[in-house]
Amino acid sequence: MAVRAAVAGASGYAGGELLRLLLAHPEVRIGALTGNSNAGQRLGALQPHLPQLAERVLEPTTAEVLAGHDVVFLALPHGQSAAVAEELGDGVLVVDCGADFRLKDAGDWERFYGSPHAGTWPYGLPELPGARQALSGGKRIAVPGCYPTAVSLALFPAYAAGLAEPEAVIVAASGTSGAGKAAKPHLLGSEVMGSMSPYGVGGGHRHTPEMIQNLSAAAGERVTVSFTPTLAPMPRGILATCGAKARPGVTTESLRAAYEKAFQDEPFVRLLPEGQWPSTAVVYGANTVLVQVALDEAAGRIVAISAIDNLTKGTAGGAVQSMNIALGLPEELGLPVTGVAP
Amino acid sequence: MAVRAAVAGASGYAGGELLRLLLAHPEVRIGALTGNSNAGQRLGALQPHLPQLAERVLEPTTAEVLAGHDVVFLALPHGQSAAVAEELGDGVLVVDCGADFRLKDAGDWERFYGSPHAGTWPYGLPELPGARQALSGGKRIAVPGCYPTAVSLALFPAYAAGLAEPEAVIVAASGTSGAGKAAKPHLLGSEVMGSMSPYGVGGGHRHTPEMIQNLSAAAGERVTVSFTPTLAPMPRGILATCGAKARPGVTTESLRAAYEKAFQDEPFVRLLPEGQWPSTAVVYGANTVLVQVALDEAAGRIVAISAIDNLTKGTAGGAVQSMNIALGLPEELGLPVTGVAP
Amino acid sequence: MAVRAAVAGASGYAGGELLRLLLAHPEVRIGALTGNSNAGQRLGALQPHLPQLAERVLEPTTAEVLAGHDVVFLALPHGQSAAVAEELGDGVLVVDCGADFRLKDAGDWERFYGSPHAGTWPYGLPELPGARQALSGGKRIAVPGCYPTAVSLALFPAYAAGLAEPEAVIVAASGTSGAGKAAKPHLLGSEVMGSMSPYGVGGGHRHTPEMIQNLSAAAGERVTVSFTPTLAPMPRGILATCGAKARPGVTTESLRAAYEKAFQDEPFVRLLPEGQWPSTAVVYGANTVLVQVALDEAAGRIVAISAIDNLTKGTAGGAVQSMNIALGLPEELGLPVTGVAP
Amino acid sequence: MAVRAAVAGASGYAGGELLRLLLAHPEVRIGALTGNSNAGQRLGALQPHLPQLAERVLEPTTAEVLAGHDVVFLALPHGQSAAVAEELGDGVLVVDCGADFRLKDAGDWERFYGSPHAGTWPYGLPELPGARQALSGGKRIAVPGCYPTAVSLALFPAYAAGLAEPEAVIVAASGTSGAGKAAKPHLLGSEVMGSMSPYGVGGGHRHTPEMIQNLSAAAGERVTVSFTPTLAPMPRGILATCGAKARPGVTTESLRAAYEKAFQDEPFVRLLPEGQWPSTAVVYGANTVLVQVALDEAAGRIVAISAIDNLTKGTAGGAVQSMNIALGLPEELGLPVTGVAP
Repeated sequence: MAVRAAVAGASGYAGGELLRLLLAHPEVRIGALTGNSNAGQRLGALQPHLPQLAERVLEPTTAEVLAGHDVVFLALPHGQSAAVAEELGDGVLVVDCGADFRLKDAGDWERFYGSPHAGTWPYGLPELPGARQALSGGKRIAVPGCYPTAVSLALFPAYAAGLAEPEAVIVAASGTSGAGKAAKPHLLGSEVMGSMSPYGVGGGHRHTPEMIQNLSAAAGERVTVSFTPTLAPMPRGILATCGAKARPGVTTESLRAAYEKAFQDEPFVRLLPEGQWPSTAVVYGANTVLVQVALDEAAGRIVAISAIDNLTKGTAGGAVQSMNIALGLPEELGLPVTGVAP
Repeated sequence: MAVRAAVAGASGYAGGELLRLLLAHPEVRIGALTGNSNAGQRLGALQPHLPQLAERVLEPTTAEVLAGHDVVFLALPHGQSAAVAEELGDGVLVVDCGADFRLKDAGDWERFYGSPHAGTWPYGLPELPGARQALSGGKRIAVPGCYPTAVSLALFPAYAAGLAEPEAVIVAASGTSGAGKAAKPHLLGSEVMGSMSPYGVGGGHRHTPEMIQNLSAAAGERVTVSFTPTLAPMPRGILATCGAKARPGVTTESLRAAYEKAFQDEPFVRLLPEGQWPSTAVVYGANTVLVQVALDEAAGRIVAISAIDNLTKGTAGGAVQSMNIALGLPEELGLPVTGVAP
Repeated sequence: MAVRAAVAGASGYAGGELLRLLLAHPEVRIGALTGNSNAGQRLGALQPHLPQLAERVLEPTTAEVLAGHDVVFLALPHGQSAAVAEELGDGVLVVDCGADFRLKDAGDWERFYGSPHAGTWPYGLPELPGARQALSGGKRIAVPGCYPTAVSLALFPAYAAGLAEPEAVIVAASGTSGAGKAAKPHLLGSEVMGSMSPYGVGGGHRHTPEMIQNLSAAAGERVTVSFTPTLAPMPRGILATCGAKARPGVTTESLRAAYEKAFQDEPFVRLLPEGQWPSTAVVYGANTVLVQVALDEAAGRIVAISAIDNLTKGTAGGAVQSMNIALGLPEELGLPVTGVAP
Repeated sequence: MAVRAAVAGASGYAGGELLRLLLAHPEVRIGALTGNSNAGQRLGALQPHLPQLAERVLEPTTAEVLAGHDVVFLALPHGQSAAVAEELGDGVLVVDCGADFRLKDAGDWERFYGSPHAGTWPYGLPELPGARQALSGGKRIAVPGCYPTAVSLALFPAYAAGLAEPEAVIVAASGTSGAGKAAKPHLLGSEVMGSMSPYGVGGGHRHTPEMIQNLSAAAGERVTVSFTPTLAPMPRGILATCGAKARPGVTTESLRAAYEKAFQDEPFVRLLPEGQWPSTAVVYGANTVLVQVALDEAAGRIVAISAIDNLTKGTAGGAVQSMNIALGLPEELGLPVTGVAP
């Protein structure tokens, strides 16, 4: 079997990471590559880290160009995926790395994105309860946001086991590639090196309702989320520090047992031994998630911390993992587990 | 008036920053400089950024060497300050940049530091209610920890105004200089560049009781603190993201009014205009504190964020500011307000 | 005496650094601040590291706005300074941080900048032979380029003493602020962190003729320069590695003697002790230049290395130093010598 | 066929990178892992980026432990490889990542390393003329130094084609991992972030004779090398800027033709299109070498620039590539060509 894959939006960071992973995937052959403003350019000028594809030329993002593939990955700006997917039809596996089909609640979508809700697709975070069944054999995948990936994996075991109060407080640090490749003054190297800065404080970040959706599903009740994202001086990586009040009677042992159970069969999640903590450098370029959890007895709170690479497990790696499930391939196929460290 | 100042522990990061600031202070003349393992070495080899002092040679840290000054700054490992201070006597202003005299509760001290409590000195965070009076004209100053400086300034206005529930949740990112100059593998550039990592998770960091002390004093009741420090890939700076549940009836206006009142006359604290958020790069090398606060209505929480330079306002700048008050000099004398940015 | 200074181009990196230094200058009062696309905006939003000026509003860059000052600093794009200077007239000290008046040879100017030559002003690198006399009491200053500052100071002593063959080979690494604040994709933090990259290779960089001009003047003969600039993952700093063949008979002693003689009375240049080498972090935010020189006997070459802060000594600090000379103020007035390190 | 490989020195940066690559190699099974001071420790604590090996325990570095493998990689301090190799005997492929067997001239060895010369093994830089034949089927490989890899590949085509004068001038910037994992104060993150600094200036770096050896072999005459290494604020990567006077008659076309000929069949070297320049980020974690060359007509010099990952192509990737050749496997097997970028 050879899976023929197209990538729409191949000139951006998500597109580049998809191609890096697909090039290493033993069952995938890379087909059409498209861009909008960059159509007509050599990929070698846009993604110089992919020498095998240097002579490929970007085509415009149209259904004609994307037709005739087994899988089409969409790495497009929000709001553009629905039309493309509809034109491609139901015979093609469409994997949307954008936000369009992640949220179940149309009101949440409209409040945070300001446009009509396009619908909901199977959610590409296989580690969540029930996710693999929803993905298996399907033709549509909504790849999760990078922050919700890190946060949901850090906290869902505590909620699924009934150990945490339904008020989560999350502070996450992200590398700058999460903000994309469009040149904006505050993302200049001169501005970000040596600097930590918050943004979207006070509940405004668009990934908040996605976290609420995932944690509420795990908890079986509505979970509120106070989420503060911060920009860290590094190209890649998310470190998510997640906390909630511990329910009465929770112990370090019961907490750890819940996490061990949640992750014992997960190929990409590594619950660290006690005393060792996640760091983003360790998962650089890998699809691996590092998780650790502790009980702060004096404060009566659970603290769960995860580290991912925002472009790999947080975007393109998660997309390929879900594609493998949808196509019936081994879930780990072609995905790096080792980080490029130091 | 010329204030003759000695610095004990002049070879470390705190010592170097003290000297950088004291060199620019119009009323200070730098006297003895001491070290322990580095005694006998030229300062130019240890602190090459201080060319005016390059030919000075470090002396051993003894009371004889430190005697005869108006002010003695101690930048020593924990547990060494009490003996030196006692030998120096009550006629000298002693400014301790270590932790030894920060905590009021002997039990807290012993639990977190594992040694007998040395006592409590006036606390060198002038912005806290009552702090200036306690410092004025005195002969002893306990310089706050870097994290407690950032956190207390971010949150005390909310507690002093009765707007926040007494359960604070804090995640702070610090530059690596906070960990000192001793060579440890996990602090190598190869390890920290490109990486965010937590440490002291779950209540174990020694700065936790100091935060509790400050916030409880402001609140007039016991405040619990869940504190997670993280190491960020930058040499300097602390970004503290601090939250607590809002008490019923709190509004953005009441919150902002409390902060404006708390900081309206403060020379070093800048409450940012709405919509603008602190970043550590902006206060690089400055004694300035940037603060912003928001109400997350959906989560029912206050989010207050501060940025400082951990070596300047967080250590040496705070020390000089408090020295100015103790000596009756203008509080701002010799202290930089502008950051070195970008 | 109070010198009233205006800054045209106050929203960029050079303008911000000028203001940081002028705020600390005891004889300067800051007058008009202008911008073009940013006129009408609060400086606090554009230069948040200058809290004292946060409420100042940028005015348009016109001769009316800039009139009535003792000094006008121009931090404008190339080609705009001549017209402004002419309108301001000869009674005002005009300090041009741009390239327009640096080169003596009109042909060089036209070849590298592609526009008519505007003229030549006294060159603001006081450490070069004869430079102070040319600046003293004058009304026009051409501030050198950042690379030529670092390179000329590293190599002119060897040429002035007749120790080096007239073929210089230079590789310099610069922080990203040297490329300015305009948002371009290759200057994004995501692109520059973790990366060293060359540009303008093969003789194309516009600072090349300026280096040739300075080194040829020192040598008394035409010196060729092979110059390769590289972009380093740091916001500030230039490390210039400069070499040339040693003339017959040159020894380490004669080399070192030439450098000691050249710099013995220089307030801002520090020739390091043997065995110690410059680093950019050490001069972060300082007007200091670190220089070291060695003879590679096996290769028969002189290697001279300098480190500066490209925005301080390389631009704004050099400008203020030259202003001090022109106005008859002490040359060192208001200029930081200590770096912000680590 | 399954190649059983042992790694001696598995706790350092070279050892970790070897394991990252060997884990992805389809024909290799990882056998014994040894350390000295770290013997007895779990690899998960030392190399957390290799989750598949987290439970493996380091054994002491002895011939008994290393016996019984098809390949033994030595990542040991200088001077320790000869004894181990002798004990292992001639039936085992021994790949030495240290310097011990790189130099042909015993005098050079003794002058730069201060110990008796151990001998010379086939040199593991397959792209050099004749190197593949020397490696093929052999049982010993001396892996080149990281700087000589970058420099030799940038310059040998010019020398092999007789286009360059035999006096090379090289300035290279390296990421900090090149300095190893031993904790030294000048390698702390606090010191290296934001800083460029030179070391080993004036001909003292131990990689200098290795460069001379390679370039002289290509030129057919003795080439002198002036080499200045600099430490850059990044974990990985080498950017080598290499120059030499052009011989009379050299043109851009003849230069480019020489490089195209040298690299046309090389799987890991990419000669960039005109106008595009190497950067280290592009080859992060890849075995790829990027090369570009230009003629500076005004200075009469050739400028050749290469970028590699010092740990991949510069150490472990080069080692595996040479192992593939020695074992008769496809040269590219298991080696990443795509960089992890941005």
